[in-house]
Amino acid sequence: MRNRFSWKVCTALSAFMVFSSPLYVANADAKPKTHYLAANSENVRWGNIGKGDPVLTVNSGDIVTVEAITHHSGDDYERMIEGDAGVEDIFHWDHVEKNEALRGPGVHIMTGPIAVEGAEPGDVLEVKILDMKLRPNGNEKYAGKTFGVNAAANWGYLYGDMAEEPKKREVVTIYEMSSDGVTDYATALYSFKWTPQTDPDGKVHPTIDYPGVIVDHDTVEENFNVLEGVKVPVRLHFGTMGVAPKEADVVDSVPPSYFGGNVDDWRVTEGATMYYPVSVPGALLQVGDPHAGQGDAEINGTAIETSVTGDIQVILHKKADLNKKLNNLSYPLLENENEWVVHGFSYANYLAELGANAQKDIYNNSSIDKAMKDAAFKTKDFLMKGMDLTEDEAYSLMSVSTDFGITQVVDGNWGVHAVITKGQFGEAEQKTVGLRSAFESFGAKVRWNTPTQTVTISYNGNTLAMTIGQTTATYNGEKIKLTAPVQLSGGTAVISDYSASFYQSKLSKTN
Amino acid sequence: MRNRFSWKVCTALSAFMVFSSPLYVANADAKPKTHYLAANSENVRWGNIGKGDPVLTVNSGDIVTVEAITHHSGDDYERMIEGDAGVEDIFHWDHVEKNEALRGPGVHIMTGPIAVEGAEPGDVLEVKILDMKLRPNGNEKYAGKTFGVNAAANWGYLYGDMAEEPKKREVVTIYEMSSDGVTDYATALYSFKWTPQTDPDGKVHPTIDYPGVIVDHDTVEENFNVLEGVKVPVRLHFGTMGVAPKEADVVDSVPPSYFGGNVDDWRVTEGATMYYPVSVPGALLQVGDPHAGQGDAEINGTAIETSVTGDIQVILHKKADLNKKLNNLSYPLLENENEWVVHGFSYANYLAELGANAQKDIYNNSSIDKAMKDAAFKTKDFLMKGMDLTEDEAYSLMSVSTDFGITQVVDGNWGVHAVITKGQFGEAEQKTVGLRSAFESFGAKVRWNTPTQTVTISYNGNTLAMTIGQTTATYNGEKIKLTAPVQLSGGTAVISDYSASFYQSKLSKTN
Repeated sequence: MRNRFSWKVCTALSAFMVFSSPLYVANADAKPKTHYLAANSENVRWGNIGKGDPVLTVNSGDIVTVEAITHHSGDDYERMIEGDAGVEDIFHWDHVEKNEALRGPGVHIMTGPIAVEGAEPGDVLEVKILDMKLRPNGNEKYAGKTFGVNAAANWGYLYGDMAEEPKKREVVTIYEMSSDGVTDYATALYSFKWTPQTDPDGKVHPTIDYPGVIVDHDTVEENFNVLEGVKVPVRLHFGTMGVAPKEADVVDSVPPSYFGGNVDDWRVTEGATMYYPVSVPGALLQVGDPHAGQGDAEINGTAIETSVTGDIQVILHKKADLNKKLNNLSYPLLENENEWVVHGFSYANYLAELGANAQKDIYNNSSIDKAMKDAAFKTKDFLMKGMDLTEDEAYSLMSVSTDFGITQVVDGNWGVHAVITKGQFGEAEQKTVGLRSAFESFGAKVRWNTPTQTVTISYNGNTLAMTIGQTTATYNGEKIKLTAPVQLSGGTAVISDYSASFYQSKLSKTN
Repeated sequence: MRNRFSWKVCTALSAFMVFSSPLYVANADAKPKTHYLAANSENVRWGNIGKGDPVLTVNSGDIVTVEAITHHSGDDYERMIEGDAGVEDIFHWDHVEKNEALRGPGVHIMTGPIAVEGAEPGDVLEVKILDMKLRPNGNEKYAGKTFGVNAAANWGYLYGDMAEEPKKREVVTIYEMSSDGVTDYATALYSFKWTPQTDPDGKVHPTIDYPGVIVDHDTVEENFNVLEGVKVPVRLHFGTMGVAPKEADVVDSVPPSYFGGNVDDWRVTEGATMYYPVSVPGALLQVGDPHAGQGDAEINGTAIETSVTGDIQVILHKKADLNKKLNNLSYPLLENENEWVVHGFSYANYLAELGANAQKDIYNNSSIDKAMKDAAFKTKDFLMKGMDLTEDEAYSLMSVSTDFGITQVVDGNWGVHAVITKGQFGEAEQKTVGLRSAFESFGAKVRWNTPTQTVTISYNGNTLAMTIGQTTATYNGEKIKLTAPVQLSGGTAVISDYSASFYQSKLSKTN
């Protein structure tokens, strides 16, 4: 009972604090725990998102280091599976044994579910992405590198519409990133045209029609002269993250919907916060499909699909305590330092709207036009509810300052997102707070070095050193990009409330 | 003959220089002239873009200061027409006289046409936007302010789909900007619901169905409590700019197409360069529909519609000398410091594709899905032709790093644009050049001040002062935003080739 009570206090506090004051008071009973969720065949499900036994149960406020593995690793076994025990375990499939026997109806390897204590339908689950790191490949031969796959696949937007023959072709491009965080770009290493591949059960896959088939490189022609000199900007993000929907127990991981899932917005990255409506007890958060780079539209069917380990903090907002932005939330909502991002889909809830065969029919109903309509209505509602605007004010602001983009045209339930900048609302959405008091209020030690204009914050064994005006900082000795630089205001170091809250969370991780 | 010859040399030189070396050599015969094109009833056409007698003829390389006037000025006569002789002249309409009698079939006031000497079908016209300034209102009562109009109009995306009654309503919001360049945001001043308005000929306009009707403010209810505290970021741009199409003499100014026109991309701003395929002799450039702020989609039908004076430089690229990016260009292409932007539409050339009734039928065929397909094909072609990529390389890059956005859903021929970053191609698209040699090569005087790290460039009576690493500079004593900051590289001040070319053009204006 005591724990239960403390947890409720913490939840209510954090619900309040997120939008009014960013910092919640440290509480001995509610101090966040840090969990480690490794990727292995015990801790993942393959191809679906939904209900099921949790592999981890956490309290609101806890931090989870979660390993997420790309389902495209089989395209280059040597570079993306070999020597990595967790990935080998997930992909293991020979004529005797297939560790992940149940794959489908979708494709993604989802780590989880993670249950959140006390989460109930009607609540909102906040997920802060505190850190994302490329997973180094496990093969000594390629030490220090991480590889990723872009597959121009049969579900791509121009499949069959190519100019050159064969018009219906699938081309896999292997990209390479350094995993020491020094470079922030990917280069193409080689590409090959997909040829029919035979799985261990003897089934032939003429196209990329089943996840985890290991490509036999004796059957493909590797072309190493590909995209020479091109350095693709790295945008690390989770392509697929969300909670279990209520409409079905096992749901195709491909079409995104109100519960999140395969949203494929590259903005779901370190420094961002996602809000998902909870539909089942425990929420059942699932994380997967990591990407190293993707453009809005994800036009050929995939991003740079790679494996990533992330630190996420999960915060439960109880239905009774929801603020005006989260009350009756019916879609995955993104927040970052400068933006709110509303996600629309061809069908806001395709599982409910399309009936018994929804999971098949959605693929015959893909439409950007429909997704735009959905995004438009959601954005208007968000501005009215969340920003206290009248309908006419909201509609004007949607026209003069809101950017609508095409999230993806390859996931069945196509996406359009609306980017609303916080800056235009001034202090209402971007408050600055005194850096020292913000961090000292929860017990962090703040030191100021005048000659170097550097502030060093220590908490829970972690150290963050930020220099006035700089966009990069040092976190436990490693260089990181800040959500926003620290500024001087009237001689005082200040930071946005979003950043203060974000770095409090980041510093709360126990190593 | 002599001039003709010189002009050809200049054209060929500039065609070469734009993409290989940014600076073309000053040539006494080819020295660009600066023209002033005032907005008045002589120099504009209203509601259409197309063929017609030019109001100005220029040589390739010439700079034109062009006044562009918003067709929405009548929504607040006192703040947007009164006291401004040019605007009064254009809008003058009483029972005796209507200065601009022929308005339609579209709505925009287009300044021009500007003929370019020697332009022929198959050539490409480059338009560099060197400067854009808000046009101060002419009424002393509101000195120093510029006003703009956002109309949630009957052609808006959610017209009839509003939640509150009456669902079909048109709401006009008047925005206010300071025109001294100090503030870079707009605030809403007041709004009113459109009521039936009677024009000087006695015709009643129950909706916004004809441009230039002066709203009788005794018939509307002004609401001054609108968007309080909201500061909309200013994004000055030309909503409508383009050359005359070949398919018809008089073309509705609303639907954009291969010839440009009402593209409504807020990236068509100071520092950007547009490329248009020339379809008729002289090219016949037309400029209008200035905006102070717009989001991608322009969802309610309009931006912040205001009046702007711009400096543009027009450079003709002859068909025989077109580089690989411009060869066979079939759509309005945008370049800026960091990006190439490809514009797709529901119909790439609706005038040709939809037949005799194209100008009516386009409004029944609006679709983002169609525009996305068009943008996808154009982007693939651009990457293959312009960046020398194979089809498979282009398709991969479109997925992993190209952002597709929704340009507008309100102009009949709806738009999707693709943003391709130059940085990923390295030196191939973003070369740096030594600042001193770049500017001295065409005769500018370059002075370097070590203590302040400032470089001052003087040419043709203009002075540009830039400080290393800073994003703002001083141009003839006024603060401006730079396309990119000057950097130090090995002790030498460097600048991108795009910026060097851009500021050479800007300095070439004769005041």
